[in-house]
Amino acid sequence: MSKTVTESWAAMEPKAKVVPYQLELPTLGPNDVEVDVEYCGICHSDVHIIDKEWGDEASRFPKVAGHEIVGKVSRRGTEVKELQIGDRVGIGWYRRACLSCEECIEGYENLCPHGEATCFGASQGGFARKTIADARVAFPIPKEIPPEYAGPLFCGGITVFAPFRRFGVKPGDHVAVVGIGGLGHMALKFAKAFGCKVTAISSSADKINEAKEYGASHFINSSDEKQMKEAQGTIDFMLVTVPKKLPWQQYTALLRRNGKMAIVGAILGNVEVPVMTELMVRQLTICGSITGGRALIKDMLDFCALHQIFPKCEVTSVNHLNEALDKVRENKVRYRMVVKL
Amino acid sequence: MSKTVTESWAAMEPKAKVVPYQLELPTLGPNDVEVDVEYCGICHSDVHIIDKEWGDEASRFPKVAGHEIVGKVSRRGTEVKELQIGDRVGIGWYRRACLSCEECIEGYENLCPHGEATCFGASQGGFARKTIADARVAFPIPKEIPPEYAGPLFCGGITVFAPFRRFGVKPGDHVAVVGIGGLGHMALKFAKAFGCKVTAISSSADKINEAKEYGASHFINSSDEKQMKEAQGTIDFMLVTVPKKLPWQQYTALLRRNGKMAIVGAILGNVEVPVMTELMVRQLTICGSITGGRALIKDMLDFCALHQIFPKCEVTSVNHLNEALDKVRENKVRYRMVVKL
Repeated sequence: MSKTVTESWAAMEPKAKVVPYQLELPTLGPNDVEVDVEYCGICHSDVHIIDKEWGDEASRFPKVAGHEIVGKVSRRGTEVKELQIGDRVGIGWYRRACLSCEECIEGYENLCPHGEATCFGASQGGFARKTIADARVAFPIPKEIPPEYAGPLFCGGITVFAPFRRFGVKPGDHVAVVGIGGLGHMALKFAKAFGCKVTAISSSADKINEAKEYGASHFINSSDEKQMKEAQGTIDFMLVTVPKKLPWQQYTALLRRNGKMAIVGAILGNVEVPVMTELMVRQLTICGSITGGRALIKDMLDFCALHQIFPKCEVTSVNHLNEALDKVRENKVRYRMVVKL
Repeated sequence: MSKTVTESWAAMEPKAKVVPYQLELPTLGPNDVEVDVEYCGICHSDVHIIDKEWGDEASRFPKVAGHEIVGKVSRRGTEVKELQIGDRVGIGWYRRACLSCEECIEGYENLCPHGEATCFGASQGGFARKTIADARVAFPIPKEIPPEYAGPLFCGGITVFAPFRRFGVKPGDHVAVVGIGGLGHMALKFAKAFGCKVTAISSSADKINEAKEYGASHFINSSDEKQMKEAQGTIDFMLVTVPKKLPWQQYTALLRRNGKMAIVGAILGNVEVPVMTELMVRQLTICGSITGGRALIKDMLDFCALHQIFPKCEVTSVNHLNEALDKVRENKVRYRMVVKL
C-alpha cells in the first residue's frame, strides 16, 4: 500500500516557528484508522516538546506536535469493527497501546510500556491534515460535546478527571484545585458536577470570579498567608495542576486527616513532605497521575456529555498556529487553545 | 471516690533508668475500666518518650511509659456494658477517643484530635500494676491469641495491619516489607496470610532465613545494588517499617506502575520523590499511616486469631524492665519485647 503524504506544520529545530511540512504518514495497520483532523488542542506539553525542554528522547526534528486531536475517520484498517467512515473521534496523549501487557489489561493503557505517545519522540502529532491511530484508542465523541471544544478533553480533561475516579472522590468531599488554568478550570467543573464542596486556590486574586463561574464555592489567594492559614486541615482531596514546585508544606497543611494530594502538573523537581509529623500522624497520601486509560476516557466523555462539561477554549485557524503556540508558551491562554485545521 | 495508687516503673528524668514509683491513677469515669496489667510490650516509642527525643510535649516526668497493654478488667465504670470483670483486654497507643468528632465517626479513632495517647505527655502508661482506659478502646483479646504475645499487636501490629486494609492490598499482590524488625516481621506474617507474593528487604543479609520463616518468599539485600536493580518495577505495595530516612529513589524505583509506598517507620525528615519522572509517569502513591481505628483493630484481632498470627516476643519480668528497655534502645530485640507484670 502506498504511503500517504499530508500537509502538516512542523518545527524544524528546537524552539523554531512551525512551518508547512509534507508529512509522510505511517502505513495504515489492520487495527488503525486514518483521521481527517478537524481540530487540535495545544497543550503545554506540545511547547515543551517543540522547545526541547524534556530532553532528546522527547523531541526529534522535524517535529509535528499536537495530541488533542478531533477528526473524522477517513480510512479503516481491515480489522476495524467499531468505527465507521465519517465517525468523529478524539485521540489524546497516546495513539497506540499494546492492549496485552499487565497495565493494559488492568485498564491503564496510559501506562503501557509498549505504547506510542501521539507526538513524543519520532511520533508525529495532530498539527496535520491527517493522522493515524489505533482505532481502539480513538474514542467516539458524544454528540452533546461541541467538536471544537472536545480536543482538550483527551489530554487536559482526562488528566484532571482520572484522579477523581482513581482516588474515590465522593459527593460532599471538600476538593481544592490548585492553579486555575487549562487544567484547573476543567477540574473545577468536574468537582462541581461531582457534588463536592469546591475551593479554588490561585496566586492570581483576579481569577476569583472566573473560578466561581467554573464551579468554585470558595477561593483562596495563595499569596495571602491569613487565608492559607484559615484553610488548614479542611481539604479532603487536593488536585495540584500548576507546573511548578510549590512550598509543599503550606499545601499539605491544608489537607485534613486522611487527605490526599494528587499532582498532575508537570513539575520538575521533588515533592518533599515530612514523614512523621505530616505524612504519618495525619495519614496523608501524595500521589501522581498522568492522563488515563480507555475505561476512564469513555467514562469522562459520558460524564461530560451528561453535565455539559467542556473546556473554555480559544479557537483559531491553523494558519495562526505560531501565534497560538506563543500564547501557550507565555501562559496567556484562558483556558485552552485549539486550532482548526 | 478515693483515688487508686498503684505500683509502677517511672523514669524520673530524660534517659534515666526507671525506678519503682507510686502512681496515682485518674478517677474511674463512667465509661472507663480499670485493668490489672498482666503484660506490657515495649515499643521503640516508649524509649523515644523516656529519652525525650520527641520534644517537651511528649515527655513529662516522672514518666511511666508502656502502651502495648494486656490485662484483666478489675473495675468498671457505671456505664460500661460490653466488658465484664475478669475479661482480658488489650490497650494500645490511645486510651481515649472522643467518639464524636468527624475522625471518630468515620472510624479513625486513632486520629481523634481530642483523644488521649496512653503514655504521651501527662498520660501515664502500662509499666504499672493497674491502668485505666475508656472501655470502648479496650479490646477483648480472642482466646486463640496467647496473652503474653498479644500486647505488641495493639501498637506495632495494628501499625502494619492497617495499611494493608486502607490501601486495599489484595491476595496475589507483590508486597515488599522494608526492614525486618519489630514491625517488619509482623508485616511479613500478615502479607503471607493475605495470600500475597512477599519480598523482605533488609540491609542485614543474615536475616534471610528468619524473613522466610515469617512469610517472605523472596529476599533483597538492600546493600546489594544488583539485587535492588533487578527488582525495579516489580512491587505493588511497599511497607517501609524502618525508622530512618531511606535513599528514596532507590525504593520508589522498585514499585511497579500504580505502586504504593506506605511509610509506618517514625522517620524524622522528609520523603522526597521526583514529581514528573517518578510520581506522575508511573502513577505512584506515597502515604503515611499510624496505628488504626477501632474497626481495624477488631478486624486485625479476628485475623490474627484466624491465622494464628502474633509477634515473636522476648518475655521478661518487669523486674528486668531497665535491661529490656536498653535492649530496645540498642535495637537488639528479635523481634518484640514484652514485660510480665
